[in-house]
Amino acid sequence: MDEFGLIATYFTRPARHAAVRLGVGDDAAVLAASGQEHVLTTDTLVAGVHFPDAAPGFDVGYKALAVNASDLAAMGARPLGFLLSLALPAIDETWLGGFRDGLFRLADELAMDLIGGDTVHGALTITITAIGEVPPGEALTRAGARAGDRIYVSGLLGEAALGFLMRAGRVTLPEEFAPQVLARLDRPRPRIAEGQALRGIASAAIDVSDGLVADLGHLTHASGVGAALDLRRLPLSDAYDAAFTTVGYDAALTFGDDYELVFTVPPERLTALHGVAAKVPGGFHYIGDIVAEPGLVFRGGPAGYAPATGGYAHFRS
Amino acid sequence: MDEFGLIATYFTRPARHAAVRLGVGDDAAVLAASGQEHVLTTDTLVAGVHFPDAAPGFDVGYKALAVNASDLAAMGARPLGFLLSLALPAIDETWLGGFRDGLFRLADELAMDLIGGDTVHGALTITITAIGEVPPGEALTRAGARAGDRIYVSGLLGEAALGFLMRAGRVTLPEEFAPQVLARLDRPRPRIAEGQALRGIASAAIDVSDGLVADLGHLTHASGVGAALDLRRLPLSDAYDAAFTTVGYDAALTFGDDYELVFTVPPERLTALHGVAAKVPGGFHYIGDIVAEPGLVFRGGPAGYAPATGGYAHFRS
Repeated sequence: MDEFGLIATYFTRPARHAAVRLGVGDDAAVLAASGQEHVLTTDTLVAGVHFPDAAPGFDVGYKALAVNASDLAAMGARPLGFLLSLALPAIDETWLGGFRDGLFRLADELAMDLIGGDTVHGALTITITAIGEVPPGEALTRAGARAGDRIYVSGLLGEAALGFLMRAGRVTLPEEFAPQVLARLDRPRPRIAEGQALRGIASAAIDVSDGLVADLGHLTHASGVGAALDLRRLPLSDAYDAAFTTVGYDAALTFGDDYELVFTVPPERLTALHGVAAKVPGGFHYIGDIVAEPGLVFRGGPAGYAPATGGYAHFRS
Repeated sequence: MDEFGLIATYFTRPARHAAVRLGVGDDAAVLAASGQEHVLTTDTLVAGVHFPDAAPGFDVGYKALAVNASDLAAMGARPLGFLLSLALPAIDETWLGGFRDGLFRLADELAMDLIGGDTVHGALTITITAIGEVPPGEALTRAGARAGDRIYVSGLLGEAALGFLMRAGRVTLPEEFAPQVLARLDRPRPRIAEGQALRGIASAAIDVSDGLVADLGHLTHASGVGAALDLRRLPLSDAYDAAFTTVGYDAALTFGDDYELVFTVPPERLTALHGVAAKVPGGFHYIGDIVAEPGLVFRGGPAGYAPATGGYAHFRS
């Protein structure tokens, strides 16, 4: 099978969005002019870096799309489709079938069309570019937080960290918690509905991929403000509580891979926030406040608490 | 330097297109609703597969954008911008500076904004997603060729092949031809002006990346037709003539990396084609005709001629 056969066999399906004027199979895809703004983001997953070499294809396909869709969620965008670039060391039909199934499982849930891509020979590397749409001017950005805004997160923190640490044998958890934390690590749910519900309510938003501290840091830096986090308010699960003596607050603050939204809300929009909070799966958890002074301070924890690292970084100097 | 410093140092510049509402530095880019259709394409280059490990960063950056922009050209699109995903084994500032310079050299020539991306640790792999725009309904596709249409190509074929074979020591060329064939290999010029000029004239179009035979085959397959190529009409340079006894027609037909446009024109639009041909750098070369019978036949060459291979493929079964 050459790359053309591979695309025809595994990755060609009819598009569901009328906006997709032309999908897989030409030199490029064409999206109709809809009066909406297009939102575009790209993220790469590398075997041995972002996932273990032996990870099942299903999980890799699912997560590769999930991390990109999470960026659309953080913009308040409605997902439309994605392009897939797949570097493969060889054609392993079992792995590819699983990859395709995981990818399309989430694509179906999010109503995203595969509209184009490339397949090449190389070390296993998956790059997805996701495309969504927002009404003109309504995209959520990182830059709008102001002192006095409240900081919220869309669901539990540190679950993926627990899954990773449990699989690595670095924490021991009661068996009942294993499925939940591994699912959060392997198949994160992008907060698509939440992101769209926050349009017109959140003053700034970002998704938590590198860890709450790092990503909130990007948001406050872009907004020219600081943040005070209340450690007692962090949404932590019973599983997290069971591991707390080992992982402390650090796993929830700096491991990343949470793919929750962290966002800020001005006081005058709190009523609107409460109006939509009940309608979304994860709810919204108040975890701190935006302050004028740049930097991040912690409240409610041990005196002088600070996490041991700032968050995930690919290249440390 | 971590990946955030890398992006800030090397890859952050102001956007030139007003359509770029939000570029590098947020969760995603935002493109304004302009009334135009958006055209999206992605291509990956892997070190050791698409370019030698020791290739200068400048050439890699230039070519990574060129091969993507060439797909926009084949759609008749006006380039707007691109997202860059860069997997790097380490931060090599010399290489990165060269890569950035080559990338932005072509980006400046084509007026393309870098609007987003990702940098990760991994084997050297560059994935670009390019975005352009076309007036609604005017994108050139592969699917519109009809029997009786003429087949054209936008410039010389086989030049990149000569550059590759010369560098590999597999052909010897008079020294005067070296710069020209190496430039065509390392820094191909996407036929952007040509593609836009062909809107409303070409019935189908594709760019020549895998070789004329393979790419014309994609076009005829998508159109449900066949093609008759006249070997005497192939646009070949003096350099090619000098190597002809070694490479025959094969290098021009099956090596690829030409990044010329091959396109079809119905007889009633030939006058319009001649009207624009004089205005574009490469001119348009008539090389054959679309026929009703599927498949590809060769005219004007040695009796029974067929190229030894069909074109570049990443995975041969």
